[in-house]
Amino acid sequence: MADSFDDRHIGIDDAARRRMLDALRFESIDDLVRSAIPPSIRVDEAHESIIPAALTEREALRELRELAGRNTVNTSLIGLGYYGTITPAVITRNVLQNPSWYTAYTPYQPEISQGRLEALINFQTMVADLTGLDTANASMLDEGTAVVEGMLLARRASKAKTDTFIADADALPQTLALLRGRAEAVGIDLVVADLASDPELPEHFGVFVQYPGASGRVWDPSGLIERSKAHGALAVVAADLLALTLLAAPGELGADVAVGTTQRFGVPMGFGGPHAGYMAVRKGLERQLPGRLVGVSKDADGHPAYRLSLQTREQHIRREKATSNICTAQVLLAVMASMYAVYHGPDGLRGIATGVATKAGLLARWLSDAGVEIVHENFFDTVLARVPGRAAAIVAAAHDEGILLWQRDDDTVGVSVDETTDTATVHRVVRAFGGPESRSFAFVVEAVADHLPHQLQRASDFLTHPVFSAHHSETAMMRYLKRLADRDYALDRGMIPLGSCTMKLNAATEMEAITWPEFAELHPFAPAGDVAGSLELIHQLERWLADATGYDTVSLQPNAGSQGELAGLLAIRGYHRSRGDHERTVCLIPSSAHGTNAASAVLAGMRVVVVACDENGNVDLGDLSAKIAEHGETLAALMITYPSTHGVYEHDVARITAAVHEAGGQVYIDGANLNALLGYARFGDFGGDVSHLNLHKTFCIPHGGGGPGVGPVAAKAHLAPFLPGHPMAQSNDHGGFTHDGAPVSAAPYGSPSILPITWAYIRMMGPNGLARATRAAVLSANYIAARLNPHFPVLYSGDNGLVAHECILDLRPLTKETGITVDDVAKRLVDYGFHAPTMSFPVPGTLMVEPTESEDLAELDRFIEAMIGIKAEADAVAAGEYPADDNVLVNAPHTALSIANAEWQHPYSRERAVFPVSALARDKYWPPVRRIDQAYGDRNLMCACPPIEAFS
Amino acid sequence: MADSFDDRHIGIDDAARRRMLDALRFESIDDLVRSAIPPSIRVDEAHESIIPAALTEREALRELRELAGRNTVNTSLIGLGYYGTITPAVITRNVLQNPSWYTAYTPYQPEISQGRLEALINFQTMVADLTGLDTANASMLDEGTAVVEGMLLARRASKAKTDTFIADADALPQTLALLRGRAEAVGIDLVVADLASDPELPEHFGVFVQYPGASGRVWDPSGLIERSKAHGALAVVAADLLALTLLAAPGELGADVAVGTTQRFGVPMGFGGPHAGYMAVRKGLERQLPGRLVGVSKDADGHPAYRLSLQTREQHIRREKATSNICTAQVLLAVMASMYAVYHGPDGLRGIATGVATKAGLLARWLSDAGVEIVHENFFDTVLARVPGRAAAIVAAAHDEGILLWQRDDDTVGVSVDETTDTATVHRVVRAFGGPESRSFAFVVEAVADHLPHQLQRASDFLTHPVFSAHHSETAMMRYLKRLADRDYALDRGMIPLGSCTMKLNAATEMEAITWPEFAELHPFAPAGDVAGSLELIHQLERWLADATGYDTVSLQPNAGSQGELAGLLAIRGYHRSRGDHERTVCLIPSSAHGTNAASAVLAGMRVVVVACDENGNVDLGDLSAKIAEHGETLAALMITYPSTHGVYEHDVARITAAVHEAGGQVYIDGANLNALLGYARFGDFGGDVSHLNLHKTFCIPHGGGGPGVGPVAAKAHLAPFLPGHPMAQSNDHGGFTHDGAPVSAAPYGSPSILPITWAYIRMMGPNGLARATRAAVLSANYIAARLNPHFPVLYSGDNGLVAHECILDLRPLTKETGITVDDVAKRLVDYGFHAPTMSFPVPGTLMVEPTESEDLAELDRFIEAMIGIKAEADAVAAGEYPADDNVLVNAPHTALSIANAEWQHPYSRERAVFPVSALARDKYWPPVRRIDQAYGDRNLMCACPPIEAFS
Repeated sequence: MADSFDDRHIGIDDAARRRMLDALRFESIDDLVRSAIPPSIRVDEAHESIIPAALTEREALRELRELAGRNTVNTSLIGLGYYGTITPAVITRNVLQNPSWYTAYTPYQPEISQGRLEALINFQTMVADLTGLDTANASMLDEGTAVVEGMLLARRASKAKTDTFIADADALPQTLALLRGRAEAVGIDLVVADLASDPELPEHFGVFVQYPGASGRVWDPSGLIERSKAHGALAVVAADLLALTLLAAPGELGADVAVGTTQRFGVPMGFGGPHAGYMAVRKGLERQLPGRLVGVSKDADGHPAYRLSLQTREQHIRREKATSNICTAQVLLAVMASMYAVYHGPDGLRGIATGVATKAGLLARWLSDAGVEIVHENFFDTVLARVPGRAAAIVAAAHDEGILLWQRDDDTVGVSVDETTDTATVHRVVRAFGGPESRSFAFVVEAVADHLPHQLQRASDFLTHPVFSAHHSETAMMRYLKRLADRDYALDRGMIPLGSCTMKLNAATEMEAITWPEFAELHPFAPAGDVAGSLELIHQLERWLADATGYDTVSLQPNAGSQGELAGLLAIRGYHRSRGDHERTVCLIPSSAHGTNAASAVLAGMRVVVVACDENGNVDLGDLSAKIAEHGETLAALMITYPSTHGVYEHDVARITAAVHEAGGQVYIDGANLNALLGYARFGDFGGDVSHLNLHKTFCIPHGGGGPGVGPVAAKAHLAPFLPGHPMAQSNDHGGFTHDGAPVSAAPYGSPSILPITWAYIRMMGPNGLARATRAAVLSANYIAARLNPHFPVLYSGDNGLVAHECILDLRPLTKETGITVDDVAKRLVDYGFHAPTMSFPVPGTLMVEPTESEDLAELDRFIEAMIGIKAEADAVAAGEYPADDNVLVNAPHTALSIANAEWQHPYSRERAVFPVSALARDKYWPPVRRIDQAYGDRNLMCACPPIEAFS
Repeated sequence: MADSFDDRHIGIDDAARRRMLDALRFESIDDLVRSAIPPSIRVDEAHESIIPAALTEREALRELRELAGRNTVNTSLIGLGYYGTITPAVITRNVLQNPSWYTAYTPYQPEISQGRLEALINFQTMVADLTGLDTANASMLDEGTAVVEGMLLARRASKAKTDTFIADADALPQTLALLRGRAEAVGIDLVVADLASDPELPEHFGVFVQYPGASGRVWDPSGLIERSKAHGALAVVAADLLALTLLAAPGELGADVAVGTTQRFGVPMGFGGPHAGYMAVRKGLERQLPGRLVGVSKDADGHPAYRLSLQTREQHIRREKATSNICTAQVLLAVMASMYAVYHGPDGLRGIATGVATKAGLLARWLSDAGVEIVHENFFDTVLARVPGRAAAIVAAAHDEGILLWQRDDDTVGVSVDETTDTATVHRVVRAFGGPESRSFAFVVEAVADHLPHQLQRASDFLTHPVFSAHHSETAMMRYLKRLADRDYALDRGMIPLGSCTMKLNAATEMEAITWPEFAELHPFAPAGDVAGSLELIHQLERWLADATGYDTVSLQPNAGSQGELAGLLAIRGYHRSRGDHERTVCLIPSSAHGTNAASAVLAGMRVVVVACDENGNVDLGDLSAKIAEHGETLAALMITYPSTHGVYEHDVARITAAVHEAGGQVYIDGANLNALLGYARFGDFGGDVSHLNLHKTFCIPHGGGGPGVGPVAAKAHLAPFLPGHPMAQSNDHGGFTHDGAPVSAAPYGSPSILPITWAYIRMMGPNGLARATRAAVLSANYIAARLNPHFPVLYSGDNGLVAHECILDLRPLTKETGITVDDVAKRLVDYGFHAPTMSFPVPGTLMVEPTESEDLAELDRFIEAMIGIKAEADAVAAGEYPADDNVLVNAPHTALSIANAEWQHPYSRERAVFPVSALARDKYWPPVRRIDQAYGDRNLMCACPPIEAFS
């Protein structure tokens, strides 16, 4: 009687299911699934899931409220890269709580992503301006991993013949822990030195400075950088963007690379994440940038248009030649941070920074007055106090007052003020240090100038582009966000049938808790007692995910699928080395694998060997045996995706995993396609030693326009000690297993603020609902495959001719016959009101379609009919009805502007161009630009806001 | 340093202000305002507002959280028209929290309101289907006022020669209180009788039945209705829509009119409101329906299109001939309720109702088992228990368990279960009645059939239109809501410069608290101790509003401006009668007044006498004196709007009010334009005795597409006893004054769930911010007036040639010269991306423009340039460049479909039609239909969902 959530999440109702099964000639959906999934891997029906039975949406929220109630939101002055910030309500409501923003996909189809691409180019402009460098990318996963990427960039760009990288001893502790682990895996010698003290430096390819330092110290690194660069090294500077509104920019100090976080630009701390990290480089290094880079190009009519630049650098294309495995960006958070800058503008940001610096100055003065020694004379927001032997007592006293400080060691305490700090809080801090009970609250404005070194005060302008001055009222901001969202196609408009990306429903109830202050406003290094609710939520989620996949322990730390891969491979590496198997470094990867697999293997210090696939798209068992035999004692692992990236349940997977184990290798099963297995099969049961999952695919974390992602890694007990730990974690115990490996993310639990989404999904589906979702996804994929097969051959299938949760449509015959390419079909789908399926992955010349369980039959049919309509349009070209170089396909997509032009010279009508089906007459999505010239943009790289005249 | 909210609320920054003042040739904004506002009314500068200084957004939310924390959300089983309900999260997020829905205006421009018009026609279809009647309107203010409107409708439609109306003794107590007060004012004799007992009835024009009764009783009123109708009376039935999914419909029982609330269709109780009431009538009465009615017509291309029907009935047109003063509807809530029906569909609703009935049956059985006497055998959701002498103790015991019951009297207790009730709650109720501590939770399904009388079980279908079956998955629902929102123009797209309607920013922070359960989930009759936070918020708001307007006491009960007018006029009436002045019934109203003024006066039992205006648009002092003299001892009141509806500060207002007082009359100042005075003048200071305010205009409650509104009434002390009280109010004390008049709304505090919006606005603006907003509004209006005056003469101005907060552009010369009408200009503005200003009010042939303080200069200039562009287009018609019957103006607005047509036969280009300015090329709002034929729709009245084939 109660409304059950799975009925809302799953698009296929009883009547639709019957019609679809009839089309497929199956009696029941059970028959279908049993025919599709090989019996050898099916989970024992007697297995009882530990995932509890489903709650209703209301009940799940009540349980989440209880968990939230077990957190205590104290005022954090811990700092260390995480600061209190005020998210403008207009941004929370219109971005973070608006499906038009959060359900969008990565802007690989730029014509229908101009809104978020503009937001990202604003982000890049903001970062480039503030850091004083030439080119910034569209975000990094977090500051810690951005520093690692900076190190790797320095290594490949430097001409110095050495493997030594020097890191600032005054770097954030989590950054140092990340650098240590990642350097070790790829053979870099990490030297940590107190750079401010001007030490002698060994030969090195790169140097890393934290600016301001973790201790709060502000010093001028330009001399150090100059000397270092003279020896051919590159300088990487992690800089606080807010401080940069007052301090000289890294670029002005000689840095080659600047990295950091944009968290304090309006993104809640969220117990550690997600936030957008950033990276900017000087001219000449832009083609070395990891991650995504938005640039300006032009469309078919010559209008300026944004798109992702230099995609050829990306790891999914370069595979084992990739220099980074970063794939997901933090788009949603980057959008928020950029909009914070748009809303405040340069003067507003400067005002906020001045306020922060003033409060820090005030704190220092009052502490001094109270007889406390201040360690550094120059600082921005962080005051380091020397209190011999008293640090613990002071931190405890502050905690009693509801304030969290950083106990650096027994004798020093750090206090970082932020945008939200008021003078009453400053006074409470002083009291915790033993200062006077009462105090006059005189506001000491001159304090600022006292503590920022004169020679480092910023003279250069920033955020001079008009976009940073035009939207300062809430009305203007709301409209700007709406205007950008209107340019884009997200899940709230229609199906995004992206194979391998699983664009399923992101339910409103799932999203609800992420903006609750009890989850949003926690510092990642808060005391365990303050975060009991979040820890319990994490613990439950770890158990559920382990149970669903057949593993023993789970780490939620990796904040993207690629980082999960890396963590899993590092665990395999650690395991082999712990047994003395230092030579086991070969990682077998099937040719069909996602490119990230290979890139991650390289970054885990492994050597990639490709295994061939047979004509059915399955792993070629002969080649596998040969490769295993060939590499013998050096075999580290096989990395395999299940169901395969071809969308098929390979029949022989258990034999494959057994063969690898026999040879002493470990089996890594990529969990990207877990949604085709949940409730039916578990990786751990058919031979997996470790897997990563994609919470943003299978478990409903929205794609956010290209991030955040969450890529937990799940493993068998023997790998547990090598999973990522964290030096500042409240606990490294994960369900009875201690994770002792080096961290792979800056925060102990990666991106915990969005975990309530996945928690709510699992809690509201229950084990039965999850299995039902699997069935519905498989049914829908097979329905599409069956209906489209007569028009576009389905490339691969498994047992009984069935696909799993997605299908590959082969367009190569069509292209051969008609000249119409995958690109043409994809862009023409825009005219029909659709986002294209995945293009040319894993097989060039194909489209991979994944409908997911959330689409209803009406939408599936609408898509099928669009594809059939497009096929007919292509046939008309083949038949000579339309010229090959002037038809609805090669000219797609069509804008409103293009049909308004009086000079319509095409051999087809305007109506045919933009209203190919009549239902569009009332509700048409209009792309804002026509097809974008990718090559032009790469040749003429421009990655900051274009002047507004460009659009006139 | 802290971000101040007024900087975000007000669109004009320092640089813009300077440029605008330069254009107006004023040195400072103070000079401008001092020149515009007559010194005689200006508030003493020494006056210290009791409104506290502004808080930041963050601080205000913290204070609201504290207030919320003082409420206790107990489980209400009180019933009486307010029930627990589950708002689907997809509706909360995508309607109630989405500015595209809540910032929209009343759909008077139907071409750009097709989305919410479709939602409203769904609402009408839902109501008509469930009530079994032919035509439903687009909502009523609440159930109580809907019953009153039903009574008034019966009186004018009945041929019976009597003033007697008979009401069911088993009606909701608040409904009876409303009926008593409203009947008395217009000379209706109200007879209350126990209709279920088949009493002898006097001659009557109408009869009113509550179905099911307030006591829960379900009985068959068809015999009674038949007898009543045989005597020429009309039958009005208030019916519970959820019950109607299981029970025979009012229409099937012979009712002429059905009324009620749609609250339990997913709209939180909200401590009483707002919710959408409803009214449906049988064929033949549709032209008698009060309120708004959506119908289907066709556009210029013959496509079906929605718009408001029969607007000629509306009170703003019919003035003193109006039969109702209802103006605002409850659109946003009606949209929510209709979407609840769309999401659940007929089977889902039946399932929910069955669940409710089953739980009620279970409760009755368990109570019986425990020895408690159940009063009525037949019931739907409400069980009435007879517990001689124990009622108070049982209610108290339940309260201790966190459950609220209804103590009907010393001996009876009512318990109403709802969608949210679980069996554990049922058991706790039974325990409170002294039932056993433990109980087996067997779920007694047969219980339903036991308690719904067999002959009343519903046999007819409902909600058979496909829209109620197509959107049952959350994905489908989210997309449907997005698709509808995309058709509409709301504040999130651009300026809505509606004179007299004040479409200013509805800030996200203001909206935040309305969805907090502590405000949203309170029953209006909860014990005072449970709602201390809400009462305190109301108390503060009353004080602030009284202070801002110069009055002594405020009632927040009226849930629309029109109801505020009525309450104020009823207070004047009560005051005169209390002094024996029964003859004082004449209400003077200037000819320029809003039509609602006159309608409200009639409904308050007054006689309207119109006072002329002079050529400057001001009250004609000569005529006023003459009318005062003429009516002498019968003068009840003058009703005047200040600044006038002409947008002018009348110089002589203090003389006018003095003259009325001298003659023994009371002065009612309509506060619709209060936003031009805040901080500068107070009604009470310049002669007002009573005023209503519009929180949805001056105080930021969003227009919601045509409601909710809130129309508090503020008065001097001598009128306080006659302001609306409420029999179920937690307290009728309002700042030391007891309000003892009859209620005008069903709930004691009207629409308290949205009062946090206004509270937050005032708290974040502070007195200085409010005054600053007044200045900015006056500056912007004068800027527009000055810049457009050369193109469209500004009709009226006050001292120094200045307007107040709005200006009237005279289009009559243009129409005379060119044939281009106000309508043409309004529709052409859509092509330019604007919502038209107010058309032909208060002067036919004009446009009234009110920019508000929230628009920034860029948007003002964009509007001005659009108007100038349109003027040039009209001039081109006048010059003969384009034919009078085929030009961009008369053909506006242009749809994308219309320009896609190959046959373009107009003398202007497609580009000229849809891209009159180049900025539209990237971000164009496309109207979904062309100009709508109003007359066709009224001639062919169709007010339910059209068949989907109509759109093919």
